[in-house]
Amino acid sequence: MKALIFGGSGALGRSMVKVFKGWKVTSVDFNKNEECDNIIIKNASDINLLKSELNTLEKFNCIVCVAGGWTGGSIKEENVLQVYEDMNQKSVVPALVCSHLATTQLSRQGLLIFTGAYSVFNAPTPSMIGYALAKTAVHTLAIQTAVSTHLPEDSAVITLLPETIDTPANRQAMPKEDFTKWANPDQVAGLVRSWAEGLNRPKNGAFVHLRVKNGSIAPDFL
Amino acid sequence: MKALIFGGSGALGRSMVKVFKGWKVTSVDFNKNEECDNIIIKNASDINLLKSELNTLEKFNCIVCVAGGWTGGSIKEENVLQVYEDMNQKSVVPALVCSHLATTQLSRQGLLIFTGAYSVFNAPTPSMIGYALAKTAVHTLAIQTAVSTHLPEDSAVITLLPETIDTPANRQAMPKEDFTKWANPDQVAGLVRSWAEGLNRPKNGAFVHLRVKNGSIAPDFL
Repeated sequence: MKALIFGGSGALGRSMVKVFKGWKVTSVDFNKNEECDNIIIKNASDINLLKSELNTLEKFNCIVCVAGGWTGGSIKEENVLQVYEDMNQKSVVPALVCSHLATTQLSRQGLLIFTGAYSVFNAPTPSMIGYALAKTAVHTLAIQTAVSTHLPEDSAVITLLPETIDTPANRQAMPKEDFTKWANPDQVAGLVRSWAEGLNRPKNGAFVHLRVKNGSIAPDFL
Repeated sequence: MKALIFGGSGALGRSMVKVFKGWKVTSVDFNKNEECDNIIIKNASDINLLKSELNTLEKFNCIVCVAGGWTGGSIKEENVLQVYEDMNQKSVVPALVCSHLATTQLSRQGLLIFTGAYSVFNAPTPSMIGYALAKTAVHTLAIQTAVSTHLPEDSAVITLLPETIDTPANRQAMPKEDFTKWANPDQVAGLVRSWAEGLNRPKNGAFVHLRVKNGSIAPDFL
């Protein structure tokens, strides 16, 4: 079984690589993850490099896009265009690249995972306009990809809708929050691995709210 | 009364400029429109140039964003990233710029108009993925701007959801269609002008499906 983790050297990506142990895992990222094979890119839109590297490989049973980022700020901010472009490069372009790669590199009955945001899915978030536009684009892309005719037979597109994930960066940014209410990245990765193996897999096009209850993830399917 | 037409030398923009006759109208575009004042920009993200030009002017009662474009193609296309970036520059960036400008340049009881797409609003359109992502971003931006606290008091954000607009480019692209079923750009502009003057203005945050019936626009408020 083979998995491609786009963003495999980030916090959630490292958990994915670790939890997918036993599979042949390839990370696509700016930096190397020593725990797996790597394709190092310089920017998220290096699609031609990626395709030339991937064309020699067998197809993937699972493609997981966990590249992302967060920046706040409203429409009134002087730098709103830069923030939007940054969020676009960090979230939308990787998701587009993964979706495009899935049309040729995903196996039958394969799984394509996008990372959205519950906050943005649930309500307007005008205090983080760039993030909201980027994550909405990811949600839309997921819907569009799920209904497209270009993915392999019986494959499924599933979008994670996390609230806060328990990463070092989030702990540093919000030191006074109760970390036990945040989603543990290994648990998120475990849920994805189970779906990748066909266990209780949500149907194609599902959006999965990653609620945390009693220290576990209680997924809710929207 | 003053109006800013972003994209005022395009097909729909020229109708806006014409129909807003009697107002003081400023077009922002790459090319000049001889019927009004002009601010010529080199690209849609020339926000600093725009702001320095606008800061000397009085506020606008209406800001209309009619910049846009269309390109088809699915997620499978080799050039999907370029198409997305092109749609982003043609639709999302102008809408972001207009939204940002509205926070300082719109008057009280002002009107901010975005141009969305009914097809994209209504259902997934995976055969035109770049366009779908860009127009969804515009729709999201409209919602986010409508609920933000940064627009002047009693102002309204309204999003046009046209189907096909009767422009020369559309006639050329779809010569076999029945042009009488398309929205006449002067009629679209007339509807916007009436709202700008406070006549039967939809409420803040409205999405307006521009249905065509018996040769007139029968707006439906979603």
